[in-house]
Amino acid sequence: GAKMAAWARGVRGLLLDISGVLYDSGGSGGGVPIAGSAEAVRKIKASGLKLRFCTNETQATREKFVKKLQGLGFDISVAEVTAPAPAACRLLKERGLRPHLLVHDDLVPEFAEIDKTNPNCVVVGDAAENFSYANVNEAFRVLIGLEKPVLISLGRGRYYKETDGLKLDVGAYMKALEYACDVEAEVVGKPAKAFFESALAEMGVPPQEAIMIGDDIVSDVGGAQQCGMRAVQVRTGKYRPCDENHPQVKPDAYVNNLAEAVDVILSQL
Amino acid sequence: GAKMAAWARGVRGLLLDISGVLYDSGGSGGGVPIAGSAEAVRKIKASGLKLRFCTNETQATREKFVKKLQGLGFDISVAEVTAPAPAACRLLKERGLRPHLLVHDDLVPEFAEIDKTNPNCVVVGDAAENFSYANVNEAFRVLIGLEKPVLISLGRGRYYKETDGLKLDVGAYMKALEYACDVEAEVVGKPAKAFFESALAEMGVPPQEAIMIGDDIVSDVGGAQQCGMRAVQVRTGKYRPCDENHPQVKPDAYVNNLAEAVDVILSQL
Repeated sequence: GAKMAAWARGVRGLLLDISGVLYDSGGSGGGVPIAGSAEAVRKIKASGLKLRFCTNETQATREKFVKKLQGLGFDISVAEVTAPAPAACRLLKERGLRPHLLVHDDLVPEFAEIDKTNPNCVVVGDAAENFSYANVNEAFRVLIGLEKPVLISLGRGRYYKETDGLKLDVGAYMKALEYACDVEAEVVGKPAKAFFESALAEMGVPPQEAIMIGDDIVSDVGGAQQCGMRAVQVRTGKYRPCDENHPQVKPDAYVNNLAEAVDVILSQL
Repeated sequence: GAKMAAWARGVRGLLLDISGVLYDSGGSGGGVPIAGSAEAVRKIKASGLKLRFCTNETQATREKFVKKLQGLGFDISVAEVTAPAPAACRLLKERGLRPHLLVHDDLVPEFAEIDKTNPNCVVVGDAAENFSYANVNEAFRVLIGLEKPVLISLGRGRYYKETDGLKLDVGAYMKALEYACDVEAEVVGKPAKAFFESALAEMGVPPQEAIMIGDDIVSDVGGAQQCGMRAVQVRTGKYRPCDENHPQVKPDAYVNNLAEAVDVILSQL
């Protein structure tokens, strides 16, 4: 009804999270699309609304990631994706930082242009199986050996959902390194305000006319709202019913999935 | 001089940390004694002072650990060692908890008597190389799947020093699991007050007549002082000069090593 969709009025642009909204990652094929999501993306593009994909994905370069999503049936291009690694590269260059990388092998090419000799900071991403004790300890030793330890974290997610279950995300290892070295990480990616702002700037839409759609109550919903946007939580991906009792964050709306969110938004145009 | 040794007066019992005080762990032989420490232990025993070893070591059973220390020349027996695993077993039994263990393979026998079927809590110890992504993720999945997650951590150390460099300790992984599951760990081991109190009870000495000697400014010195004991930091093991500017904890004294501490204490008897 009209009253229920007040959250969907006056919208000019959408930011979409990818994992848990477009598809569930994992398994031999790299993931499975969430029913109706590929069609929903096509509807957004046909509507004239501005659209950007805003992801904390750091297990692959954007090129490789986008290719996988195209293979799953999504209309998406690299130029439409805002992701942490390029934002981190800008920050590293601005501040003359040379990173030791604790990231997924497939993300390393994103840092090809960055000087990594004699590191003076650590960059941690979702390294998955690369989070061996030896690798985490090596990053720890670099960090604790610095006079002024600098830790840059690509997101601060707690966990995500793959087809075979929940997986620990970068935030857990960020916390481990923070504690071990008594340092506070600088987060690049959601929920950092600067990250949402750059996605909005790339889209050319002010926050009050944009909606973030995501499955993460803190990184997606909380982060976008901090930035002045509206935010909707989908009941797919890592969504859990207890998210609806979150003590700090309350979404502008819940929807069952992306397809439902898009249908409501388009009905209000 | 007499004035410098005021901290060493009126002592009836000593609690000694092991790693970083008696020896530095690591390497093919399992570690190297710290010069003068074996002789210092013999002097304490000859003096009539009460003595207990109070360790957060969880990479081996007490039996195996003590055998290694005996091989390095120390006069020590299993009955003299207060360690986290037996304390954790008492706690598990009292509360009917069935643990999923994220610990070193060599510690598992300490939990032989404990029912580990259908786990309703996670116990994390210093698992070292066992802190693979797969193992940490498995513990995470057990914990997040519990209606009321219970995480028990064998110590909360940040790192320790082996012969080949610093190594991440259990505290880092405790923090990772705490963050991922939004839960606070219950710490068994130093710096928990109950742990020092059980070591004091086993020694039969009240806190005001006991001194803790350790290399960890927080777990050893801070923990013992919280318990009403005096505490001395040795400049061996994981000691770093910046410990002397710690914002919260100030030892009753610094000594270069255990041998020096013992000589001063014995000179005041």
